[in-house]
Amino acid sequence: MSTLETSDSVTALAAQVEALAAQVRSLSSRLEAAESHAPSNRLTLLVLSGDFDKLMVAFMVANGAAAMGTDVSMFFTFWGLCALRKDRQFKGKTVSEKVLSAMLPSGPDAAATSCFNMAGMGPAFFRSVMKQRNVESLPGLMESAQAMGVKMIACQTSMEIMGIRTEELIDGIEFGGLGVYLGDALDSRTAFLI
Amino acid sequence: MSTLETSDSVTALAAQVEALAAQVRSLSSRLEAAESHAPSNRLTLLVLSGDFDKLMVAFMVANGAAAMGTDVSMFFTFWGLCALRKDRQFKGKTVSEKVLSAMLPSGPDAAATSCFNMAGMGPAFFRSVMKQRNVESLPGLMESAQAMGVKMIACQTSMEIMGIRTEELIDGIEFGGLGVYLGDALDSRTAFLI
Amino acid sequence: MSTLETSDSVTALAAQVEALAAQVRSLSSRLEAAESHAPSNRLTLLVLSGDFDKLMVAFMVANGAAAMGTDVSMFFTFWGLCALRKDRQFKGKTVSEKVLSAMLPSGPDAAATSCFNMAGMGPAFFRSVMKQRNVESLPGLMESAQAMGVKMIACQTSMEIMGIRTEELIDGIEFGGLGVYLGDALDSRTAFLI
Repeated sequence: MSTLETSDSVTALAAQVEALAAQVRSLSSRLEAAESHAPSNRLTLLVLSGDFDKLMVAFMVANGAAAMGTDVSMFFTFWGLCALRKDRQFKGKTVSEKVLSAMLPSGPDAAATSCFNMAGMGPAFFRSVMKQRNVESLPGLMESAQAMGVKMIACQTSMEIMGIRTEELIDGIEFGGLGVYLGDALDSRTAFLI
Repeated sequence: MSTLETSDSVTALAAQVEALAAQVRSLSSRLEAAESHAPSNRLTLLVLSGDFDKLMVAFMVANGAAAMGTDVSMFFTFWGLCALRKDRQFKGKTVSEKVLSAMLPSGPDAAATSCFNMAGMGPAFFRSVMKQRNVESLPGLMESAQAMGVKMIACQTSMEIMGIRTEELIDGIEFGGLGVYLGDALDSRTAFLI
Repeated sequence: MSTLETSDSVTALAAQVEALAAQVRSLSSRLEAAESHAPSNRLTLLVLSGDFDKLMVAFMVANGAAAMGTDVSMFFTFWGLCALRKDRQFKGKTVSEKVLSAMLPSGPDAAATSCFNMAGMGPAFFRSVMKQRNVESLPGLMESAQAMGVKMIACQTSMEIMGIRTEELIDGIEFGGLGVYLGDALDSRTAFLI
């Protein structure tokens, strides 16, 4: 190349490099946007049901995902809350709250199956078969979930509607509104409603 | 640098710049593909149930997500359709359509709870407690959903199976097949079936 | 440009190009990470229910998604397993397994509806209406699903709990644990639990 040609090439190259730099900046901000929209490595469960079999599946899914290194959040609302109860309290409740307290099952051992409940025989039957098969029990699954760091959130609106108090629920859970859960759900890889 | 060295450097740089430009083009098309596969900021609900409590949760989830700026589509199929009914019509229906029309609950105020329905007492009980707690009623939640632009789609196949006519359903809804809904669901951040 | 200026420009350009190359390498690995975390074009269904209407919806969703070119996996657990049964077997079973075998519905034609079952009249009613409307029957939907390559997996833990043997289930299905399913679900665009 002549000195003049070289000088021209350098000018042209500088323009190309500048254009490339602009493209790289634009790619970088597009990638940043894509990264910020990507869901977290999280699975969420909205637990609406208080049925024994559905609670079993909910905790089997939660524990399975947690064992695979996935963050898990469970949000318990309406009948699902009953799984988190440790005992019934009647003191200081209104009449309608007392009625609900007496009627709603208290804790995982009181949950009925969604099919073949047969006045409580269903869960008893399943519990005995599961014991024979070395399948973990529902309270056992719940303990494992807590030990593996599965986040359990009790729905505050449902607690108010059903007249359930904080001290009636098991320890180690959080309390929150549906909005908090939805934020988690929209940011999760997989979200189930059960 | 000597003039010769400079000229060589420029040639080498030009090759590097060309290689970089090719890499940037390839990154750009890979990023485009990733962007086109990324889900929209959307939540979808497939509403199969006509239970009062499940409909409450469905609309609480829909409204909560809409309030967070998320697009929401709800697809109502089978029993879920009953929530969208405004009145029963019998004229011009076949016998089996009339039987279904008479049996299926009509509108959100007729929905039964999935637990403790007690011949309709369950929903009445919940409605009174929710009023005390200032929780919005089911028809109120449905109105809010429509006001916030939540898209409600009635499943045409279910309407045909259950003999439900367009004019029996509330205003402001769309009609479509499962395929349309599935397209939305596959393109959404979160999809629930209730 | 003077020869000296040209030489300086080339040195500066070379530095810019090197910096750009580093940025492109970093973008490329960030993009690779984003691509590897992106879900597959897959829809998964965890089928817990054995209700006729829910099974209908599960297979309508599965077939609709498969027809749109989406990979579909269905995982059948608890009551959902009953849809996959072809016949009851009692030989070599324990008493509790025999009781469950006799009680659980066998195959899609024995499934009850979740509402208005009316001692089996519900599904019969729906089947007759669906036939009139040219909606595919549940066994027909299951056959179509298999023909379109929908992967059906029977939950081995549920099979053990419920005493269901491999040979009691229809052909062409796979057997696996919840972990396999969860891997698919976390890697899917959409996951439903029904």
